[in-house]
Amino acid sequence: MDEKLKKVMDATYECMQACNNCFDACLNEEHLDMMRECIRLDRECADICQMVLSFSGREGSLRNDLVSLCGTICQACGKECEQHDHDHCQECAKACFTCADACRSFVNA
Amino acid sequence: MDEKLKKVMDATYECMQACNNCFDACLNEEHLDMMRECIRLDRECADICQMVLSFSGREGSLRNDLVSLCGTICQACGKECEQHDHDHCQECAKACFTCADACRSFVNA
Amino acid sequence: MDEKLKKVMDATYECMQACNNCFDACLNEEHLDMMRECIRLDRECADICQMVLSFSGREGSLRNDLVSLCGTICQACGKECEQHDHDHCQECAKACFTCADACRSFVNA
Amino acid sequence: MDEKLKKVMDATYECMQACNNCFDACLNEEHLDMMRECIRLDRECADICQMVLSFSGREGSLRNDLVSLCGTICQACGKECEQHDHDHCQECAKACFTCADACRSFVNA
Repeated sequence: MDEKLKKVMDATYECMQACNNCFDACLNEEHLDMMRECIRLDRECADICQMVLSFSGREGSLRNDLVSLCGTICQACGKECEQHDHDHCQECAKACFTCADACRSFVNA
Repeated sequence: MDEKLKKVMDATYECMQACNNCFDACLNEEHLDMMRECIRLDRECADICQMVLSFSGREGSLRNDLVSLCGTICQACGKECEQHDHDHCQECAKACFTCADACRSFVNA
Repeated sequence: MDEKLKKVMDATYECMQACNNCFDACLNEEHLDMMRECIRLDRECADICQMVLSFSGREGSLRNDLVSLCGTICQACGKECEQHDHDHCQECAKACFTCADACRSFVNA
Repeated sequence: MDEKLKKVMDATYECMQACNNCFDACLNEEHLDMMRECIRLDRECADICQMVLSFSGREGSLRNDLVSLCGTICQACGKECEQHDHDHCQECAKACFTCADACRSFVNA
Protein backbone atom coordinates (compact mmCIF):
# COMPACT_ATOMS: atom_id res chain seq x y z
CA MET A 1 0.00 0.00 0.00
CA ASP A 2 1.02 3.56 -0.73
CA GLU A 3 2.99 5.05 2.20
CA LYS A 4 0.90 8.23 2.44
CA LEU A 5 -2.31 6.22 2.36
CA LYS A 6 -1.05 3.94 5.14
CA LYS A 7 -0.39 7.06 7.21
CA VAL A 8 -3.95 8.25 6.58
CA MET A 9 -5.36 4.92 7.71
CA ASP A 10 -3.30 4.70 10.89
CA ALA A 11 -4.06 8.35 11.71
CA THR A 12 -7.81 7.98 11.16
CA TYR A 13 -7.79 4.85 13.33
CA GLU A 14 -6.07 6.75 16.16
CA CYS A 15 -8.25 9.80 15.64
CA MET A 16 -11.50 7.83 15.66
CA GLN A 17 -10.51 6.25 18.97
CA ALA A 18 -9.48 9.59 20.48
CA CYS A 19 -12.75 11.21 19.37
CA ASN A 20 -14.90 8.39 20.74
CA ASN A 21 -12.99 8.46 24.01
CA CYS A 22 -13.36 12.26 24.22
CA PHE A 23 -17.09 11.98 23.39
CA ASP A 24 -17.67 9.60 26.31
CA ALA A 25 -15.47 11.55 28.70
CA CYS A 26 -17.08 14.90 27.79
CA LEU A 27 -20.50 13.46 28.59
CA ASN A 28 -19.18 12.60 32.06
CA GLU A 29 -17.66 16.03 32.75
CA GLU A 30 -19.03 18.16 35.57
CA HIS A 31 -19.30 21.38 33.56
CA LEU A 32 -21.14 20.07 30.56
CA ASP A 33 -22.29 23.43 29.25
CA MET A 34 -19.02 24.29 27.57
CA MET A 35 -18.57 20.85 26.03
CA ARG A 36 -21.57 21.00 23.66
CA GLU A 37 -19.63 21.71 20.50
CA CYS A 38 -16.86 19.33 21.50
CA ILE A 39 -19.36 16.47 21.89
CA ARG A 40 -20.97 17.24 18.54
CA LEU A 41 -17.68 17.47 16.68
CA ASP A 42 -16.26 14.37 18.37
CA ARG A 43 -19.13 12.37 16.93
CA GLU A 44 -18.92 13.90 13.47
CA CYS A 45 -15.16 13.49 13.31
CA ALA A 46 -15.28 9.88 14.55
CA ASP A 47 -17.91 9.04 11.94
CA ILE A 48 -15.91 10.52 9.07
CA CYS A 49 -12.74 8.79 10.24
CA GLN A 50 -14.65 5.50 10.37
CA MET A 51 -15.86 6.11 6.82
CA VAL A 52 -12.36 6.89 5.56
CA LEU A 53 -11.02 3.76 7.27
CA SER A 54 -13.56 1.71 5.39
CA PHE A 55 -12.99 3.40 2.01
CA SER A 56 -9.23 3.78 2.12
CA GLY A 57 -8.56 0.11 1.88
CA ARG A 58 -10.45 -0.43 -1.36
CA GLU A 59 -10.64 0.91 -4.87
CA GLY A 60 -13.04 3.72 -5.59
CA SER A 61 -13.30 7.13 -7.12
CA LEU A 62 -14.28 8.93 -3.91
CA ARG A 63 -11.25 8.17 -1.79
CA ASN A 64 -9.51 11.50 -2.38
CA ASP A 65 -12.64 13.50 -1.72
CA LEU A 66 -13.40 11.63 1.49
CA VAL A 67 -9.85 12.03 2.76
CA SER A 68 -10.07 15.73 1.98
CA LEU A 69 -13.33 16.08 3.95
CA CYS A 70 -11.73 14.12 6.77
CA GLY A 71 -8.87 16.61 6.91
CA THR A 72 -11.37 19.46 7.18
CA ILE A 73 -13.39 17.97 10.02
CA CYS A 74 -10.25 16.81 11.90
CA GLN A 75 -8.91 20.36 11.77
CA ALA A 76 -12.22 21.75 13.09
CA CYS A 77 -12.47 19.14 15.84
CA GLY A 78 -8.85 19.71 16.86
CA LYS A 79 -9.43 23.49 17.07
CA GLU A 80 -12.40 22.93 19.38
CA CYS A 81 -10.72 20.30 21.56
CA GLU A 82 -7.50 22.23 22.11
CA GLN A 83 -9.48 24.97 23.89
CA HIS A 84 -10.38 22.62 26.75
CA ASP A 85 -7.93 21.64 29.49
CA HIS A 86 -9.22 18.10 30.04
CA ASP A 87 -6.63 15.46 29.20
CA HIS A 88 -9.06 13.68 26.88
CA CYS A 89 -9.60 16.92 24.93
CA GLN A 90 -5.88 17.66 24.65
CA GLU A 91 -5.18 14.10 23.50
CA CYS A 92 -8.03 14.29 21.03
CA ALA A 93 -6.77 17.61 19.64
CA LYS A 94 -3.35 16.04 19.09
CA ALA A 95 -4.80 13.03 17.28
CA CYS A 96 -7.03 15.31 15.19
CA PHE A 97 -4.17 17.55 14.05
CA THR A 98 -1.98 14.53 13.23
CA CYS A 99 -4.81 13.11 11.17
CA ALA A 100 -5.50 16.44 9.45
CA ASP A 101 -1.82 16.57 8.46
CA ALA A 102 -1.86 13.02 7.11
CA CYS A 103 -4.99 13.77 5.09
CA ARG A 104 -3.50 16.94 3.60
CA SER A 105 -0.26 15.14 2.69
CA PHE A 106 -2.23 12.44 0.92
CA VAL A 107 -4.51 14.78 -0.98
CA ASN A 108 -1.67 17.07 -2.06
CA ALA A 109 0.62 14.22 -3.10
CA MET B 1 -39.47 -8.20 0.29
CA ASP B 2 -40.88 -9.88 3.36
CA GLU B 3 -43.57 -7.72 5.01
CA LYS B 4 -42.09 -7.90 8.51
CA LEU B 5 -38.64 -7.02 7.18
CA LYS B 6 -40.04 -4.01 5.31
CA LYS B 7 -41.57 -2.84 8.59
CA VAL B 8 -38.18 -3.17 10.29
CA MET B 9 -36.51 -1.11 7.58
CA ASP B 10 -39.09 1.67 7.62
CA ALA B 11 -39.07 1.74 11.41
CA THR B 12 -35.28 1.87 11.67
CA TYR B 13 -35.24 4.67 9.09
CA GLU B 14 -37.73 6.70 11.15
CA CYS B 15 -35.98 5.83 14.41
CA MET B 16 -32.53 6.80 13.12
CA GLN B 17 -33.88 10.19 12.09
CA ALA B 18 -35.68 10.72 15.39
CA CYS B 19 -32.55 9.78 17.37
CA ASN B 20 -30.30 12.07 15.34
CA ASN B 21 -32.79 14.90 15.68
CA CYS B 22 -33.04 14.30 19.45
CA PHE B 23 -29.24 14.13 19.74
CA ASP B 24 -28.86 17.57 18.13
CA ALA B 25 -31.74 19.08 20.07
CA CYS B 26 -30.53 17.69 23.42
CA LEU B 27 -27.14 19.31 22.86
CA ASN B 28 -28.95 22.64 22.47
CA GLU B 29 -31.08 22.28 25.61
CA GLU B 30 -30.60 24.71 28.47
CA HIS B 31 -30.45 22.08 31.21
CA LEU B 32 -27.89 19.77 29.70
CA ASP B 33 -27.05 17.92 32.90
CA MET B 34 -30.04 15.62 32.77
CA MET B 35 -29.65 14.86 29.07
CA ARG B 36 -26.32 13.02 29.32
CA GLU B 37 -27.69 9.50 29.01
CA CYS B 38 -30.20 10.59 26.38
CA ILE B 39 -27.42 12.00 24.18
CA ARG B 40 -25.33 8.85 24.56
CA LEU B 41 -28.21 6.51 23.80
CA ASP B 42 -29.44 8.63 20.87
CA ARG B 43 -26.08 8.15 19.21
CA GLU B 44 -25.85 4.44 19.96
CA CYS B 45 -29.41 3.81 18.80
CA ALA B 46 -28.98 5.85 15.61
CA ASP B 47 -25.80 3.93 14.77
CA ILE B 48 -27.40 0.53 15.24
CA CYS B 49 -30.45 1.57 13.21
CA GLN B 50 -28.12 2.73 10.44
CA MET B 51 -26.35 -0.64 10.55
CA VAL B 52 -29.62 -2.55 10.39
CA LEU B 53 -30.77 -0.40 7.46
CA SER B 54 -27.63 -1.34 5.59
CA PHE B 55 -27.80 -5.05 6.44
CA SER B 56 -31.53 -5.62 6.10
CA GLY B 57 -31.57 -5.12 2.37
CA ARG B 58 -29.04 -7.81 1.58
CA GLU B 59 -28.39 -11.46 2.23
CA GLY B 60 -26.34 -12.45 5.22
CA SER B 61 -26.33 -14.66 8.25
CA LEU B 62 -26.27 -11.85 10.81
CA ARG B 63 -29.50 -10.08 9.94
CA ASN B 64 -31.58 -11.67 12.68
CA ASP B 65 -28.97 -11.04 15.34
CA LEU B 66 -28.56 -7.40 14.33
CA VAL B 67 -32.32 -6.81 14.27
CA SER B 68 -32.50 -8.39 17.72
CA LEU B 69 -29.77 -6.07 19.08
CA CYS B 70 -31.57 -3.17 17.44
CA GLY B 71 -34.75 -4.02 19.32
CA THR B 72 -32.82 -4.05 22.59
CA ILE B 73 -31.18 -0.66 22.12
CA CYS B 74 -34.39 0.93 20.78
CA GLN B 75 -36.21 -0.22 23.91
CA ALA B 76 -33.47 1.24 26.14
CA CYS B 77 -33.35 4.52 24.22
CA GLY B 78 -37.14 4.83 24.28
CA LYS B 79 -37.21 4.24 28.06
CA GLU B 80 -34.67 7.04 28.57
CA CYS B 81 -36.32 9.48 26.15
CA GLU B 82 -39.84 9.08 27.50
CA GLN B 83 -38.68 10.46 30.87
CA HIS B 84 -38.00 13.88 29.34
CA ASP B 85 -40.75 16.37 28.48
CA HIS B 86 -39.06 17.90 25.45
CA ASP B 87 -41.00 17.32 22.23
CA HIS B 88 -37.93 15.85 20.53
CA CYS B 89 -37.54 13.33 23.36
CA GLN B 90 -41.19 12.32 23.30
CA GLU B 91 -41.11 11.92 19.52
CA CYS B 92 -37.90 9.94 19.76
CA ALA B 93 -39.38 7.67 22.43
CA LYS B 94 -42.34 6.97 20.16
CA ALA B 95 -40.13 6.13 17.18
CA CYS B 96 -37.91 3.95 19.38
CA PHE B 97 -40.82 1.90 20.76
CA THR B 98 -42.33 1.48 17.28
CA CYS B 99 -38.96 0.24 16.04
CA ALA B 100 -38.48 -2.07 19.02
CA ASP B 101 -41.88 -3.61 18.25
CA ALA B 102 -41.03 -4.09 14.57
CA CYS B 103 -37.73 -5.72 15.49
CA ARG B 104 -39.37 -8.12 17.95
CA SER B 105 -42.07 -9.07 15.43
CA PHE B 106 -39.41 -9.85 12.85
CA VAL B 107 -37.18 -11.86 15.16
CA ASN B 108 -40.09 -13.85 16.61
CA ALA B 109 -41.68 -14.57 13.22
CA MET C 1 -37.13 19.72 7.81
CA ASP C 2 -36.18 21.46 4.59
CA GLU C 3 -38.12 20.03 1.62
CA LYS C 4 -35.06 19.48 -0.58
CA LEU C 5 -33.24 17.76 2.27
CA LYS C 6 -36.21 15.46 2.89
CA LYS C 7 -36.07 14.50 -0.80
CA VAL C 8 -32.37 13.69 -0.46
CA MET C 9 -33.03 11.47 2.54
CA ASP C 10 -35.90 9.56 0.94
CA ALA C 11 -33.92 9.17 -2.29
CA THR C 12 -30.79 7.92 -0.54
CA TYR C 13 -32.90 5.46 1.44
CA GLU C 14 -34.42 4.07 -1.78
CA CYS C 15 -31.08 4.13 -3.57
CA MET C 16 -29.25 2.31 -0.77
CA GLN C 17 -31.85 -0.44 -0.87
CA ALA C 18 -31.73 -0.71 -4.67
CA CYS C 19 -27.93 -0.88 -4.63
CA ASN C 20 -27.83 -3.56 -1.93
CA ASN C 21 -30.48 -5.57 -3.76
CA CYS C 22 -28.55 -5.22 -7.03
CA PHE C 23 -25.29 -6.19 -5.29
CA ASP C 24 -26.82 -9.44 -4.03
CA ALA C 25 -28.57 -10.21 -7.31
CA CYS C 26 -25.45 -9.51 -9.39
CA LEU C 27 -23.49 -12.00 -7.28
CA ASN C 28 -26.12 -14.61 -8.17
CA GLU C 29 -26.08 -13.91 -11.92
CA GLU C 30 -24.92 -16.61 -14.32
CA HIS C 31 -22.62 -14.37 -16.34
CA LEU C 32 -20.67 -12.79 -13.55
CA ASP C 33 -17.79 -11.53 -15.67
CA MET C 34 -19.59 -8.47 -16.93
CA MET C 35 -20.98 -7.53 -13.50
CA ARG C 36 -17.64 -6.77 -11.82
CA GLU C 37 -17.89 -2.99 -11.97
CA CYS C 38 -21.58 -3.09 -11.14
CA ILE C 39 -20.90 -5.06 -7.95
CA ARG C 40 -18.11 -2.70 -6.91
CA LEU C 41 -20.15 0.43 -7.56
CA ASP C 42 -23.27 -0.99 -5.90
CA ARG C 43 -21.30 -1.36 -2.69
CA GLU C 44 -19.64 2.04 -2.90
CA CYS C 45 -22.92 3.77 -3.71
CA ALA C 46 -24.83 1.97 -0.95
CA ASP C 47 -22.15 2.94 1.57
CA ILE C 48 -22.20 6.62 0.63
CA CYS C 49 -26.01 6.68 0.68
CA GLN C 50 -25.92 5.13 4.16
CA MET C 51 -23.46 7.82 5.26
CA VAL C 52 -25.62 10.61 3.86
CA LEU C 53 -28.69 9.13 5.57
CA SER C 54 -26.86 9.28 8.86
CA PHE C 55 -25.48 12.79 8.36
CA SER C 56 -28.48 14.45 6.75
CA GLY C 57 -30.61 14.29 9.85
CA ARG C 58 -28.20 16.20 12.07
CA GLU C 59 -26.28 19.42 12.17
CA GLY C 60 -22.80 19.53 10.77
CA SER C 61 -20.56 21.36 8.39
CA LEU C 62 -20.00 18.44 6.01
CA ARG C 63 -23.57 17.78 4.93
CA ASN C 64 -23.35 19.67 1.65
CA ASP C 65 -20.05 18.08 0.69
CA LEU C 66 -21.31 14.59 1.47
CA VAL C 67 -24.52 15.12 -0.50
CA SER C 68 -22.43 16.39 -3.40
CA LEU C 69 -20.21 13.27 -3.31
CA CYS C 70 -23.34 11.16 -3.11
CA GLY C 71 -24.67 12.75 -6.30
CA THR C 72 -21.41 11.94 -8.06
CA ILE C 73 -21.32 8.28 -7.08
CA CYS C 74 -25.05 7.80 -7.75
CA GLN C 75 -24.56 9.17 -11.26
CA ALA C 76 -21.63 6.80 -11.85
CA CYS C 77 -23.48 3.79 -10.44
CA GLY C 78 -26.57 4.60 -12.50
CA LYS C 79 -24.49 4.86 -15.70
CA GLU C 80 -23.01 1.40 -15.04
CA CYS C 81 -26.29 -0.23 -14.04
CA GLU C 82 -28.31 1.06 -16.99
CA GLN C 83 -26.02 -0.88 -19.36
CA HIS C 84 -27.26 -4.20 -18.00
CA ASP C 85 -30.63 -5.72 -18.90
CA HIS C 86 -31.31 -7.41 -15.57
CA ASP C 87 -34.37 -6.04 -13.79
CA HIS C 88 -32.37 -5.38 -10.64
CA CYS C 89 -29.84 -3.32 -12.62
CA GLN C 90 -32.51 -1.29 -14.39
CA GLU C 91 -34.30 -0.62 -11.10
CA CYS C 92 -31.02 0.31 -9.46
CA ALA C 93 -30.17 2.69 -12.32
CA LYS C 94 -33.52 4.40 -11.87
CA ALA C 95 -33.05 4.80 -8.11
CA CYS C 96 -29.50 6.06 -8.65
CA PHE C 97 -30.52 8.74 -11.15
CA THR C 98 -33.41 9.87 -8.94
CA CYS C 99 -30.99 10.18 -6.03
CA ALA C 100 -28.38 11.99 -8.14
CA ASP C 101 -31.09 14.52 -9.11
CA ALA C 102 -32.17 15.04 -5.50
CA CYS C 103 -28.55 15.55 -4.43
CA ARG C 104 -27.90 18.10 -7.18
CA SER C 105 -31.10 20.00 -6.36
CA PHE C 106 -30.09 20.20 -2.71
CA VAL C 107 -26.50 21.27 -3.35
CA ASN C 108 -27.51 23.89 -5.94
CA ALA C 109 -30.33 25.31 -3.82
CA MET D 1 -8.01 0.42 27.89
CA ASP D 2 -8.56 -3.21 28.75
CA GLU D 3 -5.89 -5.43 27.16
CA LYS D 4 -8.37 -7.89 25.59
CA LEU D 5 -10.40 -5.03 24.15
CA LYS D 6 -7.29 -3.46 22.64
CA LYS D 7 -6.58 -6.81 20.96
CA VAL D 8 -10.11 -6.86 19.53
CA MET D 9 -9.71 -3.35 18.13
CA ASP D 10 -6.33 -4.02 16.52
CA ALA D 11 -7.56 -7.34 15.12
CA THR D 12 -10.75 -5.86 13.68
CA TYR D 13 -8.70 -3.05 12.11
CA GLU D 14 -6.41 -5.60 10.42
CA CYS D 15 -9.31 -7.84 9.47
CA MET D 16 -11.33 -5.01 7.93
CA GLN D 17 -8.38 -4.07 5.77
CA ALA D 18 -7.72 -7.67 4.74
CA CYS D 19 -11.39 -8.18 3.84
CA ASN D 20 -11.59 -4.98 1.80
CA ASN D 21 -8.37 -5.88 0.01
CA CYS D 22 -9.67 -9.40 -0.69
CA PHE D 23 -13.01 -7.99 -1.90
CA ASP D 24 -11.26 -5.80 -4.48
CA ALA D 25 -8.83 -8.50 -5.53
CA CYS D 26 -11.56 -11.15 -5.88
CA LEU D 27 -13.48 -8.84 -8.22
CA ASN D 28 -10.37 -8.69 -10.41
CA GLU D 29 -9.80 -12.45 -10.49
CA GLU D 30 -10.05 -14.32 -13.79
CA HIS D 31 -12.23 -17.13 -12.49
CA LEU D 32 -14.90 -15.10 -10.78
CA ASP D 33 -17.48 -17.87 -10.54
CA MET D 34 -15.97 -19.50 -7.49
CA MET D 35 -15.41 -16.22 -5.66
CA ARG D 36 -19.09 -15.29 -5.22
CA GLU D 37 -19.40 -16.28 -1.58
CA CYS D 38 -15.96 -14.90 -0.79
CA ILE D 39 -16.93 -11.48 -2.18
CA ARG D 40 -20.19 -11.45 -0.24
CA LEU D 41 -18.58 -12.49 3.04
CA ASP D 42 -15.65 -10.08 2.60
CA ARG D 43 -18.13 -7.22 2.50
CA GLU D 44 -20.20 -8.46 5.42
CA CYS D 45 -17.14 -9.14 7.56
CA ALA D 46 -15.54 -5.78 6.74
CA ASP D 47 -18.77 -3.99 7.66
CA ILE D 48 -19.10 -5.73 11.01
CA CYS D 49 -15.42 -5.12 11.81
CA GLN D 50 -15.94 -1.44 10.99
CA MET D 51 -18.94 -1.37 13.33
CA VAL D 52 -17.01 -3.02 16.14
CA LEU D 53 -14.13 -0.57 15.65
CA SER D 54 -16.56 2.28 16.10
CA PHE D 55 -18.35 0.79 19.11
CA SER D 56 -15.37 -0.68 20.96
CA GLY D 57 -13.88 2.67 21.84
CA ARG D 58 -16.93 3.99 23.65
CA GLU D 59 -19.31 3.05 26.41
CA GLY D 60 -22.43 1.14 25.56
CA SER D 61 -24.43 -1.91 26.42
CA LEU D 62 -24.06 -3.62 23.03
CA ARG D 63 -20.30 -3.96 22.86
CA ASN D 64 -20.18 -7.58 23.99
CA ASP D 65 -22.95 -8.63 21.63
CA LEU D 66 -21.34 -6.90 18.67
CA VAL D 67 -17.94 -8.42 19.39
CA SER D 68 -19.61 -11.82 19.65
CA LEU D 69 -21.30 -11.36 16.24
CA CYS D 70 -17.98 -10.20 14.85
CA GLY D 71 -16.33 -13.42 15.99
CA THR D 72 -19.03 -15.43 14.24
CA ILE D 73 -18.73 -13.66 10.90
CA CYS D 74 -14.91 -13.63 11.02
CA GLN D 75 -14.94 -17.38 11.53
CA ALA D 76 -17.31 -17.85 8.57
CA CYS D 77 -15.32 -15.52 6.32
CA GLY D 78 -12.05 -17.21 7.28
CA LYS D 79 -13.49 -20.67 6.48
CA GLU D 80 -14.52 -19.46 3.03
CA CYS D 81 -11.28 -17.62 2.27
CA GLU D 82 -8.96 -20.43 3.30
CA GLN D 83 -10.43 -22.63 0.54
CA HIS D 84 -8.99 -20.36 -2.16
CA ASP D 85 -5.30 -20.36 -3.13
CA HIS D 86 -5.02 -16.67 -3.96
CA ASP D 87 -2.61 -14.83 -1.69
CA HIS D 88 -5.25 -12.25 -0.82
CA CYS D 89 -7.64 -15.01 0.27
CA GLN D 90 -5.03 -16.77 2.37
CA GLU D 91 -4.01 -13.50 4.02
CA CYS D 92 -7.65 -12.64 4.62
CA ALA D 93 -8.32 -16.05 6.17
CA LYS D 94 -5.40 -15.51 8.55
CA ALA D 95 -6.64 -12.06 9.60
CA CYS D 96 -10.18 -13.40 10.03
CA PHE D 97 -9.12 -16.28 12.28
CA THR D 98 -6.91 -13.97 14.38
CA CYS D 99 -9.84 -11.62 14.78
CA ALA D 100 -12.26 -14.45 15.61
CA ASP D 101 -9.84 -15.56 18.35
CA ALA D 102 -9.56 -12.04 19.78
CA CYS D 103 -13.35 -11.68 19.81
CA ARG D 104 -13.85 -15.00 21.58
CA SER D 105 -11.18 -14.18 24.19
CA PHE D 106 -12.90 -10.87 24.90
CA VAL D 107 -16.41 -12.28 25.13
CA ASN D 108 -15.36 -15.21 27.32
CA ALA D 109 -13.21 -13.07 29.65
